[in-house]
Amino acid sequence: MKTTRREIIQMLGVAAGTVVITPLFSRGVSVAKEPIKPVDFPWPYSKLDPDVSADISYKGYEVGRCMYGTFLGIIGRLAEEKGAPYNTFPFLMMKYGKGGVADWATLCGALNGAAAAIYLVSNKPEPIVDELFGWFQQEKLPIYQPKDSKLEIVPSVARSTLCHVSVSRWCKVSKFKAFSKEREERCARLTADVTKKTAELLNQQLASTFKPVYPIPDHVKQCRACHDKGGTLENTRGKMDCSPCHFNLGTAHKKI
Amino acid sequence: MKTTRREIIQMLGVAAGTVVITPLFSRGVSVAKEPIKPVDFPWPYSKLDPDVSADISYKGYEVGRCMYGTFLGIIGRLAEEKGAPYNTFPFLMMKYGKGGVADWATLCGALNGAAAAIYLVSNKPEPIVDELFGWFQQEKLPIYQPKDSKLEIVPSVARSTLCHVSVSRWCKVSKFKAFSKEREERCARLTADVTKKTAELLNQQLASTFKPVYPIPDHVKQCRACHDKGGTLENTRGKMDCSPCHFNLGTAHKKI
Repeated sequence: MKTTRREIIQMLGVAAGTVVITPLFSRGVSVAKEPIKPVDFPWPYSKLDPDVSADISYKGYEVGRCMYGTFLGIIGRLAEEKGAPYNTFPFLMMKYGKGGVADWATLCGALNGAAAAIYLVSNKPEPIVDELFGWFQQEKLPIYQPKDSKLEIVPSVARSTLCHVSVSRWCKVSKFKAFSKEREERCARLTADVTKKTAELLNQQLASTFKPVYPIPDHVKQCRACHDKGGTLENTRGKMDCSPCHFNLGTAHKKI
Repeated sequence: MKTTRREIIQMLGVAAGTVVITPLFSRGVSVAKEPIKPVDFPWPYSKLDPDVSADISYKGYEVGRCMYGTFLGIIGRLAEEKGAPYNTFPFLMMKYGKGGVADWATLCGALNGAAAAIYLVSNKPEPIVDELFGWFQQEKLPIYQPKDSKLEIVPSVARSTLCHVSVSRWCKVSKFKAFSKEREERCARLTADVTKKTAELLNQQLASTFKPVYPIPDHVKQCRACHDKGGTLENTRGKMDCSPCHFNLGTAHKKI
């Protein structure tokens, strides 16, 4: 029976962690130079010290900014402790998430890196991401205080997972500008916070003690009742807090 | 002279592509089990056939959705052609970007995967990401038509890099719901489109013929003049189109 490209992608996509393409469907254009060696996926997770990971992320921020920082604090720390396969990862790629991806201010890079790390080491990653993102939207950040600094950084509630909203809201609260060194320091500390929370959540999942406490807020559930899956409109998707953008519903929207 | 953790992170961060942590600063907690073998970074890029990559992404969408799809179309295709180091990547991790990261509808997963791939193989990645994201915001998508399907999918202009906005705008134009099979098909084709564009841009950069044609639009430059770097307010950052969210500036904003 001939195996199709799709079947192989599906098979490898489910079973293997590394490459998902074989010379079997290379269309004669090329031949893979090395045999494909599937490794177990996800990569195994071992309990991390959240404070050690936070320190690594804070310092990593200086090298590669937010996404690189959180990923380094989790996967880099596992590489330090365990070696392979963690140390085979091209960590510098993670610089791409800086400032909401190449400074576009879309998704917060700290969250982008943390989500990637969670999916790499958890076999039930989505509840962990949901909890992390929910926490990030609702808590006053940053909390992290570097040992060698007495500088106070005013915390703020982002109410959003987006870099743009998170930064602008902090600028409003702190009175500092978006390209100030204080904002850089705020984001470095926030990167450490996200890593610490991620390590705590992964540790809880490992110990089977994980219990989410940041569900989707009621005011977002109210929007989703009509606009999300199964609603009469069903014209959107997602779990973000709606209110930071949709604060003015206009006159055409029914009273809520 | 004692080398600090920070100096080593910086050194490795600049020079090496793989792991960035060594036992030198493991605080005695652990010892890496394998020597660290830095490889050149970025990984070398070779010209890809954009249509072949698009087909891989379209099919990859079925396995791991949008982010996995675009990353597979670029890095998976290089793995197929070249083997290592591309085939050492844990491709399944990229499932995390589905539906704007774990279905949060933040950054479009197709763009998230493409940006990661671009940073992995380009030594001047940011202009390529800028062009790709600019194109995505302004063009009618999807364009891709699978060979084995006559199904027509209505295209729409996302005007945003965010999954939520992109999907809702498509729902409005197409009249299909956000969780319909048509919307799934739309995102699978859009994943192929993003991969094709990414391969074209990387090919152009390789051939030194890359010339951006999707600069930041004038109406966004107008906002940035006051709100972004160097502006009188400087209370935000980013390159996203402002107008899909800030369509109502309220009475307190000066007339523009």
